[in-house]
Amino acid sequence: MKRIVIVGGGFGGISVMKGLAGSGEFRVTLVDRNNYNFFPPLLYQLATGFLEVANISYPFRKLMRKMRNSRFHMGEVTGVDTQKNLLLLEDGMLPYDVLIFAVGASTNYFGMENVRAHAMPMKTVNDALELKNHLLLQMEEASKITEISQRRKFLNIVVAGGGPTGVEVSGMLADIRHSVFPKDYPEMAALDSEAGIYLVDGTDAVLKPMSQRSQQDTLKNLTDMGIKVKLQVQVKDYDGETVTFSNGETIVAKTLVWAAGVTCPRFSGMPETAYGRGNRLMVDEYNQVKGLENIYAIGDCALQQHETLFPNGHPQLAQPAIQQGSNLAANLKNQESGSKRRPFKYWDKGSMAIIGRHKAVVDLPGNKTHFRGFIAWFMWLFVHLVSLINTRNMITTLFNWTGAYFSKDQALRMIIHPETKKKNN
Amino acid sequence: MKRIVIVGGGFGGISVMKGLAGSGEFRVTLVDRNNYNFFPPLLYQLATGFLEVANISYPFRKLMRKMRNSRFHMGEVTGVDTQKNLLLLEDGMLPYDVLIFAVGASTNYFGMENVRAHAMPMKTVNDALELKNHLLLQMEEASKITEISQRRKFLNIVVAGGGPTGVEVSGMLADIRHSVFPKDYPEMAALDSEAGIYLVDGTDAVLKPMSQRSQQDTLKNLTDMGIKVKLQVQVKDYDGETVTFSNGETIVAKTLVWAAGVTCPRFSGMPETAYGRGNRLMVDEYNQVKGLENIYAIGDCALQQHETLFPNGHPQLAQPAIQQGSNLAANLKNQESGSKRRPFKYWDKGSMAIIGRHKAVVDLPGNKTHFRGFIAWFMWLFVHLVSLINTRNMITTLFNWTGAYFSKDQALRMIIHPETKKKNN
Repeated sequence: MKRIVIVGGGFGGISVMKGLAGSGEFRVTLVDRNNYNFFPPLLYQLATGFLEVANISYPFRKLMRKMRNSRFHMGEVTGVDTQKNLLLLEDGMLPYDVLIFAVGASTNYFGMENVRAHAMPMKTVNDALELKNHLLLQMEEASKITEISQRRKFLNIVVAGGGPTGVEVSGMLADIRHSVFPKDYPEMAALDSEAGIYLVDGTDAVLKPMSQRSQQDTLKNLTDMGIKVKLQVQVKDYDGETVTFSNGETIVAKTLVWAAGVTCPRFSGMPETAYGRGNRLMVDEYNQVKGLENIYAIGDCALQQHETLFPNGHPQLAQPAIQQGSNLAANLKNQESGSKRRPFKYWDKGSMAIIGRHKAVVDLPGNKTHFRGFIAWFMWLFVHLVSLINTRNMITTLFNWTGAYFSKDQALRMIIHPETKKKNN
Repeated sequence: MKRIVIVGGGFGGISVMKGLAGSGEFRVTLVDRNNYNFFPPLLYQLATGFLEVANISYPFRKLMRKMRNSRFHMGEVTGVDTQKNLLLLEDGMLPYDVLIFAVGASTNYFGMENVRAHAMPMKTVNDALELKNHLLLQMEEASKITEISQRRKFLNIVVAGGGPTGVEVSGMLADIRHSVFPKDYPEMAALDSEAGIYLVDGTDAVLKPMSQRSQQDTLKNLTDMGIKVKLQVQVKDYDGETVTFSNGETIVAKTLVWAAGVTCPRFSGMPETAYGRGNRLMVDEYNQVKGLENIYAIGDCALQQHETLFPNGHPQLAQPAIQQGSNLAANLKNQESGSKRRPFKYWDKGSMAIIGRHKAVVDLPGNKTHFRGFIAWFMWLFVHLVSLINTRNMITTLFNWTGAYFSKDQALRMIIHPETKKKNN
């Protein structure tokens, strides 16, 4: 029985695990630092208090109950011994016959240590909860200050990165400023005029990989919502109070949301030559890491360049990860049964981004068909709802969304902060 | 306009605030270290993964939207200047005409610093989440160990304190061990036989303040569920791995849940003579702190001894706090309008505790009528459901309970751990 070890239980890891479930030829071990799978496209709703953790996450062990050939191992991977076929963990090691990296991408600060120390990333459930706590704490601090000029830094928000995450976070925060905060903070009457939400991107457009029409619609929507969009500008420094931009401008803000770039984690023992652009592991058309016979990589952390449409690899999104995962699972089974392996072929299902209430943009494959406004917003809600991992999450998410929609409000505004061992009286 | 400052937004604080809402004569400021109210009787369901934070908590600012005369101030109280009528906070001060302490009780470790350092308390939302994370982490650690004798310490659980919290936590954990864990941890086949859940109390019964019949029913139920109840025994020391008892016995356990006693916080500037038994503030029949004209205390932190049935003060439960709060609000209004104040009179509505699935005990007032089993369990569910602070919380709690009941499962098993500012890649 082949021992398959999958590192990372995101879209890619779960997809390959599901593909191998029930197969008597494999014993699958999933390794993850968390004990749950989560749905990254809705992280920004966690950060803004519209959804809660349980809506967008699910325990691995519950997911794996019916996969008799699968086991879960919670742990932090440190490296690989490719000679002895051992995955090295902080607290032990796991032998493997086949190793699959599905570790996703992590936040890239481009070497700016100050930004790393003070900005708020948006890649994990903990990131999103920390951002939510931080945003609410800034509001509480501001509410204690009567001098408007003194409280501006608590209210200003800079969002770096005009991709879907940046657009969605800034749009959602603008919605909340209009509809929720005036009711909650009567001591600060006209929040909109006091402070701004700034969305900053180094390129000449927001949602750069989408169609030009989507970019233009989004820019117009964001501007109409009062968001100050700054293009062709990059964040150069941040000390926790002042954001300094590449054009020399500065903005005083206690909140810098960092959605400006990703990289991939490196693991000791993997050959340097295996890593390509963006620290992604270079793989062939079967997702096999170049030069390593029994090690594969899928999803965000894999750089696969055989498809002419994607010379720089596939986009770091859910769909390539899911599709590579199921293709890899099929190929592993084919190999066992002596059938031919199929090279990966990406099926582009289009892309979408939500901007605010009744506002979204959708590009169907090939960027030929474009939707916007209410219809795009409804498509976005539907696609994201049915993509959730199980019925329970769908029902509770639908409940929270319906409540938030009709009340123009979000209920989940508790600042919660468990510590490892708190000393109290 | 009189400035009323309420410290603490629990049952008592919210009750007095609601009583004063809309009154043009008062400007009410609620001070709390958290930005939300929560429902302590269901904390143990948070710790065991049956409910989530949003089910049992609610943001103060949302609660106060319709109370035009009320403001919220998030902050940590350090003391009082009773001469200048100033409440001192970590980051400032608040002037008051009337000050009301409704700070509740906190965990009492009886001076045992080792226990404080290593045991898990159960008084706050953060406590409950930390306990849940801790319990799940112990299971993950145990699952990596193949030697049964080596993993026992991760699986053993000692619960100190046979009051409602201790009974409910140990009952719930026993239920989970039977119905959930065998499915989730196939690598540990017979969990029940491997390790124990111990419930320890220094007195000669569990649920000491309830009727003898309730005590006996509870003890029988707990024992039937496999819980090892140790009476007339106290925890004397705990180093994080070994619990040492007053009779010299020891149990190896990485988890010691501490529900064995409460005390009340002291504040600098308050006269020493104002504090009575259990650090509670001694108050007269109008909840006025003895010797201080414009300072009141209600609920767990108040020691009111004028009622002959309660020579040692009222029980530290929700009902006395709620009733004292509304009585105090009425008296403050009476005072303004020149009417006579009413001395507090406690209306005992009985008491109840849940032990497990279909198991609970209920004593109606005067301990004369007693229910047990399914009917008591159903009464418990109903009373706790309708006591939740708003409709949203009732609906989501009912949803989670119904799901858990029919699936004999709890869905909320994610280990979530936001830190203030995490350094990641």
